[in-house]
Amino acid sequence: MQEKFIRKLAECTREENLDAMLICPGEEMEFLMGFCPMICERFQGLFLKTDGSMFYVCNLIYRDEMQEKLPADIPVYTWFDGDTMTEVVGEILQKQGLSGKKIAVNSDARAFQILELMAETGVIFVSGRYLMEAMRMIKDHEEQQALRDSAAIADQVFTEVQAVIRPGVTEKEIQDFLLRRMKELGGENPECIVGVGANASYPHYIGNEGIVGEQDVVLLDYGCTYHGLYSDMSRTLFVGGVTERQREAYELVKRANEAAEELAVEGAWIPDLDVRAREVLDEKGYAHTLLNRLGHGIGYTVHEAPDIKQSNKMHLKRGMAFSIEPGIYLGGDFGIRIEDIVMINEKGEREVLNHSTKELIIL
Amino acid sequence: MQEKFIRKLAECTREENLDAMLICPGEEMEFLMGFCPMICERFQGLFLKTDGSMFYVCNLIYRDEMQEKLPADIPVYTWFDGDTMTEVVGEILQKQGLSGKKIAVNSDARAFQILELMAETGVIFVSGRYLMEAMRMIKDHEEQQALRDSAAIADQVFTEVQAVIRPGVTEKEIQDFLLRRMKELGGENPECIVGVGANASYPHYIGNEGIVGEQDVVLLDYGCTYHGLYSDMSRTLFVGGVTERQREAYELVKRANEAAEELAVEGAWIPDLDVRAREVLDEKGYAHTLLNRLGHGIGYTVHEAPDIKQSNKMHLKRGMAFSIEPGIYLGGDFGIRIEDIVMINEKGEREVLNHSTKELIIL
Repeated sequence: MQEKFIRKLAECTREENLDAMLICPGEEMEFLMGFCPMICERFQGLFLKTDGSMFYVCNLIYRDEMQEKLPADIPVYTWFDGDTMTEVVGEILQKQGLSGKKIAVNSDARAFQILELMAETGVIFVSGRYLMEAMRMIKDHEEQQALRDSAAIADQVFTEVQAVIRPGVTEKEIQDFLLRRMKELGGENPECIVGVGANASYPHYIGNEGIVGEQDVVLLDYGCTYHGLYSDMSRTLFVGGVTERQREAYELVKRANEAAEELAVEGAWIPDLDVRAREVLDEKGYAHTLLNRLGHGIGYTVHEAPDIKQSNKMHLKRGMAFSIEPGIYLGGDFGIRIEDIVMINEKGEREVLNHSTKELIIL
Repeated sequence: MQEKFIRKLAECTREENLDAMLICPGEEMEFLMGFCPMICERFQGLFLKTDGSMFYVCNLIYRDEMQEKLPADIPVYTWFDGDTMTEVVGEILQKQGLSGKKIAVNSDARAFQILELMAETGVIFVSGRYLMEAMRMIKDHEEQQALRDSAAIADQVFTEVQAVIRPGVTEKEIQDFLLRRMKELGGENPECIVGVGANASYPHYIGNEGIVGEQDVVLLDYGCTYHGLYSDMSRTLFVGGVTERQREAYELVKRANEAAEELAVEGAWIPDLDVRAREVLDEKGYAHTLLNRLGHGIGYTVHEAPDIKQSNKMHLKRGMAFSIEPGIYLGGDFGIRIEDIVMINEKGEREVLNHSTKELIIL
């Protein structure tokens, strides 16, 4: 159990004048409690009150498992399949002094369950996603080191994968190589996107059937965890040559990446980074092709706070880690993305965690 | 696109005096639309209005993909990472005449997104899980045949797996066999639980490290899809002998299964089946160990409507298919479950889809 984070979360909940936080099973519960039960359509979750005390509610069939997994001082309340769930949970919440109170829910709570509870119990539920984010946005010494180590795995794999990419190779073969090597280098939870040619023009492309052509663009976006913390890096490579248009796009993306990273210092205003990258891309009228935020925070998940975007009106602080990933996406033609993880380290310095070259590479 | 089901869903939405249904990505969208986009923390979903018209809302980065995947007459509205999502979606809903209206959400909608939208847009969201269920609770001719074929795969694998189970074999090895053979026999999406000894005493055990002992209990619970429809079957086997207590428990579960199936005829009152099974188990005081519902509906997912439990106050109708799965679970000692899928077929007959023996087997 991550007592440090649970304490922080109870504190944030109190500061926001909420009465409790509900953590439903998923990655966030796994993070806080060290386990995640089987997720099914039956409501269950951990309630954390502002005084730091907790109780768990689940279906009767999970009672024994949960009692075994949870510390003995966390009571487990249950409802039975033959009962109406909302009635029983309503009684439990009343017993816990939460009738009519305001409870924040985490990212994994399912809307139909929460809406049914809200309709039947009189409890007010609100989004508590930002509390879960606030709880882990600032990385401590160990977390910063794990982010460095995780990024180093991504860098190493980038050097190696270049030997694999050649005409005739499929996206799947490149994916298999990336996933296997990240694992072999000690990375857990490896993930990747490999987009060839037009597939590279979709920022969140899912697929693996593309084949590298004689002259082609190959976009790699991948990462893994090390000691629980994620890496996430993108590079775009060329095979057999590069057109003038591709070179122009590549150099712009590279400059946008560097210009935004240049601004990423302690105290910087986050929207400025996003604005700056788009200004560079717009020197040749490409900003409209960058449809997403410039970057996202990273840590125990690939995407967490702080988002690097114009609507996130915050300053960069020590311990924040985030991606800078400008791109040019010419739908159906090709796409370019260059992504590093940047951290404001404990000395307050900007530290770019990825060291792989951003020079244009033709294989 | 499943036009038949979309029409049914619009009809159910209208009958319930709702103004629209929101289908967020997940299994239900995959079912209705034939695809499921990448799921991330950004709000997206398909809105179905009561007149049968639809529109899609997603982040700008998904626009091209969604326009490609969706029929041309479904407009795609987008919000940009630099925007405040709730503001933009609020404007879209207003434009679509849904301001202040009541929208039902499907099972996959995430609470934090829906609560944020509800707080900022004035739209009222309610649980629409029951509408998604109602839409596919009654299986037609083709669906009934697929359920039969799927159950036949499970039966075939049950005959074969008995040759694999012996002292020293791990749960993982048995799982691997079940999963591989279901695939080889044409089943898709194979899933299984294998619980040995005390592991069998947890109805939803997750794990694969148990090892079959010289004298042991092995609980198998598995299934797959065939033409999209699921099978789900449980049998409990003994290795190297059976104790008197185990035999007594086994025979009771078998009788409870048979007694409930006996009642499962067209027009039967669902709670009666659950009551009957528990009565049999209670002949020896075991009903309190059956912590879950007696059964669940099955079809395009393993668990769908109708649940077979005392709080589900419905009559059995032609076209319903569901499990009957009484069990005795002696936490930390052993567990017994016998599960068949039963269907009220189009002639109105009770049809037990699994034909595997329920006689006590000692390997």
